Amino acid sequence: MSATANTTITYESLHRFTAEALCAAGVSEADAATTADVLTTTDAWGVFTHGTKLLAGYLRRLKLGGLRVRGIPRIVAHGGAWATVDGDAALGQVASVLAMRTAIAKAKQQGIAFVGVRNSCHFGAAGYYTWLAAKEGLIGLAMANDVPSVAAPGSRGAILGSNPLSYAVPAGRHAPLLLDMSTATVAGGKVYAARMRGEPIPDNWIVGADGRPTTDASIYPQTGALQPAAGHKGYGIALLIETLSGVLSGAAFTWRVGNWMWDDGMQPTNHGAAFIALDVNTIMPAAQFAQRMEMLVDEIHAAPLADGAKRLCVPGEMGWERHAHAMQHGITLPSDVMEKLESVSVETGVPLSFLKT
Amino acid sequence: MSATANTTITYESLHRFTAEALCAAGVSEADAATTADVLTTTDAWGVFTHGTKLLAGYLRRLKLGGLRVRGIPRIVAHGGAWATVDGDAALGQVASVLAMRTAIAKAKQQGIAFVGVRNSCHFGAAGYYTWLAAKEGLIGLAMANDVPSVAAPGSRGAILGSNPLSYAVPAGRHAPLLLDMSTATVAGGKVYAARMRGEPIPDNWIVGADGRPTTDASIYPQTGALQPAAGHKGYGIALLIETLSGVLSGAAFTWRVGNWMWDDGMQPTNHGAAFIALDVNTIMPAAQFAQRMEMLVDEIHAAPLADGAKRLCVPGEMGWERHAHAMQHGITLPSDVMEKLESVSVETGVPLSFLKT
Repeated sequence: MSATANTTITYESLHRFTAEALCAAGVSEADAATTADVLTTTDAWGVFTHGTKLLAGYLRRLKLGGLRVRGIPRIVAHGGAWATVDGDAALGQVASVLAMRTAIAKAKQQGIAFVGVRNSCHFGAAGYYTWLAAKEGLIGLAMANDVPSVAAPGSRGAILGSNPLSYAVPAGRHAPLLLDMSTATVAGGKVYAARMRGEPIPDNWIVGADGRPTTDASIYPQTGALQPAAGHKGYGIALLIETLSGVLSGAAFTWRVGNWMWDDGMQPTNHGAAFIALDVNTIMPAAQFAQRMEMLVDEIHAAPLADGAKRLCVPGEMGWERHAHAMQHGITLPSDVMEKLESVSVETGVPLSFLKT
Repeated sequence: MSATANTTITYESLHRFTAEALCAAGVSEADAATTADVLTTTDAWGVFTHGTKLLAGYLRRLKLGGLRVRGIPRIVAHGGAWATVDGDAALGQVASVLAMRTAIAKAKQQGIAFVGVRNSCHFGAAGYYTWLAAKEGLIGLAMANDVPSVAAPGSRGAILGSNPLSYAVPAGRHAPLLLDMSTATVAGGKVYAARMRGEPIPDNWIVGADGRPTTDASIYPQTGALQPAAGHKGYGIALLIETLSGVLSGAAFTWRVGNWMWDDGMQPTNHGAAFIALDVNTIMPAAQFAQRMEMLVDEIHAAPLADGAKRLCVPGEMGWERHAHAMQHGITLPSDVMEKLESVSVETGVPLSFLKT
């Protein structure tokens, strides 16, 4: 079996493989299914950096014990419109789904709810959790901290993680608005890809060892750090995310967060995350909100285009088109993802049978 | 009296003049004091574009009726952790303070609360309202929509307002973190200033009539539009702000929002806004949160600096230093603000007596 060409497989087959590999590592069927949902949906959106490509790294940590195979995330404190979840060092996806479901349930009672998560790990794509809310007619927000990789204006090295932010908003007959962004200018992977191609990069992507902007990708990731998106604005938003996800939840923050991919795999990373759900229907009749959101989206779609532009999108629109295509025609996995899945197959003994379906 | 030089006055004198001018226009003493608090505090932070400079424009609308002199903002619907405020076309500051105080009171009961505002007007600096929350030990968020002035990636003209976002977080012995940002790359005023100086601008500030980036400031504001901060990220966040402030509150959104400065002064603008308060002490003992925030801020202050950088700040830090200086030594108003205040004095008959104190 060659990993050089892209491979197209069904959502169901990829989901089954992912869940079976996690079960083979000792994860419960329910938690394996939850994690497979998150990773496979992310691939269906075409966000391959955060989909099943992560599975191999998660399995390594599960084996070494830094991720607890039978950890059980629990609500450890709660009140009217808030809760705190302890992730018990289990897979971050399991704690995050519990947290967002808790936020949804409480928001349906109170209008809005906040759930902080501590003792979690990498949670994959933030957009999965906000989609959970939008599927039920709520507005969802999700965010998480991570080990520092992004500079602040005036710093020499990394100060905060790439701290992702996602929201999803139900939009009537349209697919939900779904933004999932990091607070850095670009993903580190994009810098690394330019390095591999030997190309210079725009001067707002990274800072060098002296803390100043550089177009030289060859120093990354050994030295330098990513730049925050829009300077002090991205830095400021990342700091709010660090506060809500890390400080207020009781999780680790900044350099105390473990690097889930590179650190000692035997220690929990103690990532933090935060989830907010807003129940539209409590605040405004759902049909009225849907009609107003449709008006907003229709207006944007009908706006005049810039010279050379093909269309004007709302957040998530391209991802939903890829998702629809993937559910009908299968997911075309890039070769780097296939390589990772093949290593998972070898490691766990779960056959890559979907390649034959 | 000359307006060519900067003028230094006390906070109290500027507050009194502002409140008296509003009272002279028929605004109640309480509402005049509230609005004067917002505008004068903003000047004390050194954000002169959003302080008492706005007073002349507000008075014009109050005279023409688009702002209702005796409008009474009211809570028109509410539940456990949410409320909707109708601003009754009164000064946006009055509706916004009511909304944030309501969010604070509810968050103290429920942990978090959301308050949407409709039928409001320009609310000045978003940071004033989040500071109200931080003063009481809560985390505050504030946002508002406005008439479109910012392009979306791929659009020819403006799609959304510069939709500001602010948060404030109490930080123990440190002043609260306080971010107050627009979702555009820069303020329109900065483009206009470059135009007046005949200087080219960076190519990420505005798009021209064809929707493409341009370095030519001379076309602004007649044609072109501001660019969103960090492209699709700023656009995405602005769209969430439009949704929470405009769509969910029942306010106007996008082009239906009135231009408070240039439109027909006789019509309400129906701006929307949204406020969220999170009661730290409900979720984590306040002393523990304060200690953790101090650790975070101290860590940032101690981080290595980039070559040429003098210090590493957290959001709001420079503003609080200006504020402390202003409260002790007075506020030094730029000449453009003084010119506006002199026109207010002529219009209302309230003497600029503070110049003699």
